Amino acid sequence: MTNTPVCVLGLGLIGGSVMRAAAAAGREVFGYNRSLDGVQAATADGFDATEDLDAVLKRAAADNALIVLAVPVPALGQMLGHIRDTAPDCPLTDVISVKTAVLQEVQTYGLRERFVGGHPMAGTAHSGWAAGDARLFVDAPWVVCVDDHVDPQIWTLVMNLALDCGAVVVPARSDEHDAAAATISHLPHLLAEALAATAGEVPLAFALAAGSFRDGTRVAATAPDLVRAMCEANADELLPVLDRVLELLTDARDALAARRPLTELIDSGHAARIRYDSFDRPGIVTIVVGEQQWREELAAAGRAGGVIRSALPTLDSRG
Amino acid sequence: MTNTPVCVLGLGLIGGSVMRAAAAAGREVFGYNRSLDGVQAATADGFDATEDLDAVLKRAAADNALIVLAVPVPALGQMLGHIRDTAPDCPLTDVISVKTAVLQEVQTYGLRERFVGGHPMAGTAHSGWAAGDARLFVDAPWVVCVDDHVDPQIWTLVMNLALDCGAVVVPARSDEHDAAAATISHLPHLLAEALAATAGEVPLAFALAAGSFRDGTRVAATAPDLVRAMCEANADELLPVLDRVLELLTDARDALAARRPLTELIDSGHAARIRYDSFDRPGIVTIVVGEQQWREELAAAGRAGGVIRSALPTLDSRG
Repeated sequence: MTNTPVCVLGLGLIGGSVMRAAAAAGREVFGYNRSLDGVQAATADGFDATEDLDAVLKRAAADNALIVLAVPVPALGQMLGHIRDTAPDCPLTDVISVKTAVLQEVQTYGLRERFVGGHPMAGTAHSGWAAGDARLFVDAPWVVCVDDHVDPQIWTLVMNLALDCGAVVVPARSDEHDAAAATISHLPHLLAEALAATAGEVPLAFALAAGSFRDGTRVAATAPDLVRAMCEANADELLPVLDRVLELLTDARDALAARRPLTELIDSGHAARIRYDSFDRPGIVTIVVGEQQWREELAAAGRAGGVIRSALPTLDSRG
Repeated sequence: MTNTPVCVLGLGLIGGSVMRAAAAAGREVFGYNRSLDGVQAATADGFDATEDLDAVLKRAAADNALIVLAVPVPALGQMLGHIRDTAPDCPLTDVISVKTAVLQEVQTYGLRERFVGGHPMAGTAHSGWAAGDARLFVDAPWVVCVDDHVDPQIWTLVMNLALDCGAVVVPARSDEHDAAAATISHLPHLLAEALAATAGEVPLAFALAAGSFRDGTRVAATAPDLVRAMCEANADELLPVLDRVLELLTDARDALAARRPLTELIDSGHAARIRYDSFDRPGIVTIVVGEQQWREELAAAGRAGGVIRSALPTLDSRG
């Protein structure tokens, strides 16, 4: 099963890193990129890449490869159309941020039965093939979705790809993933942008900036288009957590103005960060993929902090 | 001049690091700490520390040592009272965050003429003697205040201490320092607390958290009392920048809710961060401390990003 070939569509930071990591794990991997630049860079690095989408999908269909969608959200619909036409039976996953939006789009193209959504929670402020790294996913959480429809065989294929890339697998429902991602990824981007923009208006601020500013604005260096794409695509989940931050900061603002202590915000923030630092990541080991209630059990285990560090057994594979 | 002994009052993270760094630079340094624990830890590490404040101040007076105030803000008044009584003629500086508040307190105790405020922009999430590090200040900006009253000889003493600790000296007025510190230090702390507290309420958030959350909440691990002390003491300067962040985030919130693009916030945040990354730090080399308009010239140079990397000449020292 783990020898299923991997076909990566889109060779930017994430797709390019999946290609490198899968190859490093000994997997057969080939890929497509829209721009010739990316294809040439990947080829020059010794990888099997082309800008001929039709050819790559025909090959994926012939090899029954696991297709990994790693294109920007705006390109997704057109890509799914091509897959439906050329490789509709291939197992399909993605490494794009917002999971309910991707799932909906996949459903629109009639590809839901062969699809298991995924999201490696890793990245850098850089983009493009050159920014990729075979070790980008090492020890990073990689969400593999356990929505009601998912097929256990395909789920196992995606789990194995994530493990081969060195990640720890977090099973989660698409909607819960999106709420969590809004909080720990999209919201930090907006806060970083607001902090950087404010500092840009204060004389001497850059001259004095040290660790807390550098850390707090690091992700503001991410390409604006990427930040917009992920935040805007997850607006439904981002709004409530942004409102919560605004509420907490407005309360703090009012306390400051009234010369009241900032105890509430600071104590709760500190307590949460300390809980995060000691957050337990127990291994998920006893669930068999495909057995009754396996999706619900995996979602509950993921919610409790559980991660899959080595491949779970799959019902069929136990014979 | 650089052989002036250094007397550090308060041997926590910052004071303890000053003691170590000054000693590593070959300076004579001795210190006081209120708690016996800190004194014993410093002594065990081979440093000259005591909990006898009266003795340490008498020694400072006898040696005409440069006194470095490194106590928490609440302890400042009492400490200045002791200095006024026992070592009123010693040159005096501080390494406490908010500069106008310290300056005002120093003035209350009649010590302004011998005082030059300072603030090394370095720290970690830890506190206490054990957290100190002789290299904490290496390449960090260390503000040395150029308010109207400051004496060129004492300014030079403080500049030399900062340089001996490996820092780059940023000359700045106390009020400008406080506005900038609110933006690049106190505001990031509040944003980190709000982000951590919000994530603590969302199931699965900690399970998925990766780089952007870790970076964005790192300073929320700082002891709550320290965060409160620095934010509350700088309320006047923190309020307007907190209001500005609230304005930017509320605009973004409204755009998200209306499904409008987040271009404005994200583009301005990104542009500011890129400007910060390429922020030029020219060396200040041509100003002579003590010459006409030296304070205004240094403040202007610091505002423009200039830093002092090796000791400037002082009028008297040129003969």
